Amino acid sequence: MIAKTPKSPYYAVIFTSIRTDEDAQNYADMASLMAALAAEQPGYLGVESARNDIGITVSYWESLEAIQHWKAQADHLIAQQMGREKWYSAYKTRVCKVERDYGFEQV
Amino acid sequence: MIAKTPKSPYYAVIFTSIRTDEDAQNYADMASLMAALAAEQPGYLGVESARNDIGITVSYWESLEAIQHWKAQADHLIAQQMGREKWYSAYKTRVCKVERDYGFEQV
Repeated sequence: MIAKTPKSPYYAVIFTSIRTDEDAQNYADMASLMAALAAEQPGYLGVESARNDIGITVSYWESLEAIQHWKAQADHLIAQQMGREKWYSAYKTRVCKVERDYGFEQV
Repeated sequence: MIAKTPKSPYYAVIFTSIRTDEDAQNYADMASLMAALAAEQPGYLGVESARNDIGITVSYWESLEAIQHWKAQADHLIAQQMGREKWYSAYKTRVCKVERDYGFEQV
């Protein structure tokens, strides 16, 4: 689903990753858990996610402080460490300010 | 592939879309053509793309001017119009400034 974000400006974290072939079930479980936990954080606005050859997850936030808080959340730190040790062969995280947006919906 | 972007700041366009079921071959052909054409534009830095339930394409650019130039490119305008008429039931475009980034690569 396309995230229903407020009027810009707001913030986005673009997380692009390449999975290893390892540990699919634990990875899927942790991904679900982290999605649910992120949604409970202060300043969370929404998320969009897709994966083929690479995975792209974009989470949206009210402020840089909200992003920093989520990055440092205890369970999320564990997930990040398992990501580096097992699940990802590479990733890149980009912290962005959304300066403008526009969209289209078929009627 | 994860895009090899330069040191921040630079710009990102997050394009999130939901496909109709129509016209799969023409859509795939146009998507390839637009990817090749985007890569030739001034200020282009790279692209990342994935699709399951939704599609996410993130393109990276040197400047807002480069983004504006690509948005107004003639063949791209035709693709955008066909997108609204046939290929997408909904989309959202978000223009962002990448303020910082960091990554990981398994060695």
